[in-house]
Amino acid sequence: MGHKVEFEVRDYECDLQGIVNNAVYQNYIEHARHKFLLDKGLDFAQLTKDGIYLVVTRIEMDFKRSLVSGDQFVVVTSACRQSRFKFDFFQEIRRMTDDQLMVKAKVTGASISPNGRPIELNDLEKLFSA
Amino acid sequence: MGHKVEFEVRDYECDLQGIVNNAVYQNYIEHARHKFLLDKGLDFAQLTKDGIYLVVTRIEMDFKRSLVSGDQFVVVTSACRQSRFKFDFFQEIRRMTDDQLMVKAKVTGASISPNGRPIELNDLEKLFSA
Amino acid sequence: MGHKVEFEVRDYECDLQGIVNNAVYQNYIEHARHKFLLDKGLDFAQLTKDGIYLVVTRIEMDFKRSLVSGDQFVVVTSACRQSRFKFDFFQEIRRMTDDQLMVKAKVTGASISPNGRPIELNDLEKLFSA
Amino acid sequence: MGHKVEFEVRDYECDLQGIVNNAVYQNYIEHARHKFLLDKGLDFAQLTKDGIYLVVTRIEMDFKRSLVSGDQFVVVTSACRQSRFKFDFFQEIRRMTDDQLMVKAKVTGASISPNGRPIELNDLEKLFSA
Repeated sequence: MGHKVEFEVRDYECDLQGIVNNAVYQNYIEHARHKFLLDKGLDFAQLTKDGIYLVVTRIEMDFKRSLVSGDQFVVVTSACRQSRFKFDFFQEIRRMTDDQLMVKAKVTGASISPNGRPIELNDLEKLFSA
Repeated sequence: MGHKVEFEVRDYECDLQGIVNNAVYQNYIEHARHKFLLDKGLDFAQLTKDGIYLVVTRIEMDFKRSLVSGDQFVVVTSACRQSRFKFDFFQEIRRMTDDQLMVKAKVTGASISPNGRPIELNDLEKLFSA
Repeated sequence: MGHKVEFEVRDYECDLQGIVNNAVYQNYIEHARHKFLLDKGLDFAQLTKDGIYLVVTRIEMDFKRSLVSGDQFVVVTSACRQSRFKFDFFQEIRRMTDDQLMVKAKVTGASISPNGRPIELNDLEKLFSA
Repeated sequence: MGHKVEFEVRDYECDLQGIVNNAVYQNYIEHARHKFLLDKGLDFAQLTKDGIYLVVTRIEMDFKRSLVSGDQFVVVTSACRQSRFKFDFFQEIRRMTDDQLMVKAKVTGASISPNGRPIELNDLEKLFSA
């Protein structure tokens, strides 16, 4: 199943090949993760103000097909605890007209304090409940 | 004369027309202003941490010619006090191979506190000294 | 009146001041113009492929208030012919919770051929019809 | 050893955590790859015009430490043939003041025609010569 956020390609996101630039997919899936967290009651911007930094430690992305100008797509996100301080997000970008898989990603995150120490996020359990 | 910062176009800054996207010029001139400020002893990131927000209140840009992949260019910046709390930056983007004017900009800035009140920047005089 | 497109601030669009970076507003209003054009039957990406380049020649933006993480807003766009080859877009960014004006912009565009000559856009009249 | 490109963090690349946003590292390493290719005689923008699309099919990035405003860093790139149509880039982002490893990446690319078929890049051998 997973949490879903709908998007539409904006022309400024396309590069000189006429397709969405690779780095932009990372923007898309970041936004989808933050919406996912928000739906679980975790506000990324508020956490940052409170001194809890959610950071990405590793990212793996497979680019299957390219989105182009005007494409509508959905980012599907689910999460899984990896250790006490780490969690994995599994994300897929699917084009809406034909449900084709465009990008598949696994993103590992951690919660740290402003000085870089791992901190336990009390509400983290929320992420992994159905 | 003016303060100068050299740049080179990066391919990800080009859009589906194969030229640098308009919004990217705003990135270029922002970076040039921050380097200009730094040369005058004003560190934008440090000021932000100290609760002094330098904000842009108005921008005017004339787009004369388009930069393309691989172009090298210089941003020339000078500043002028407009009022107690406001200052104007005059900026030009010039292609280095032929000194052609690509973009001409006038950017008005203000210094405000986190709650939005104008605050006087003690060191502001530095900006307007030769 | 005007044509409306709704947006939501994404966290990656915010800078180290915790507010939407100035250049990003230019992205927002570009996307709104392209949606406006599309509603009038003019597809920016397709026009580019057909050798008709819609370019921005001048931009004026007044930044009134700052959008922050999570803000929902609408971009309102209308257009007005300025000359045979030039047209003006009037755009406003309004926060949706309280209809506050955040940014006001006037954007002048032209249609040119790949070699930079002005070309007349047959369908341009569409832009200015009610 | 590897090919080196020097950069400096620009303030607009930092997000509301006050550090360089994750997606921006992908911009950095893309620019470094394109400079690497150019040094080998392969011009990405020209190849695109000629109908040869260099695309990224997979990316792995490990984020070790965060770059902040003003940091100077170098991207080190080397390449290795993976198969007839595929090649791997190994890239490191190192902070210049202390040579600390900030980001480590492996990027797999392919050369395809505009209709998505793999095409052999004659000059590909150049990438893997010392």
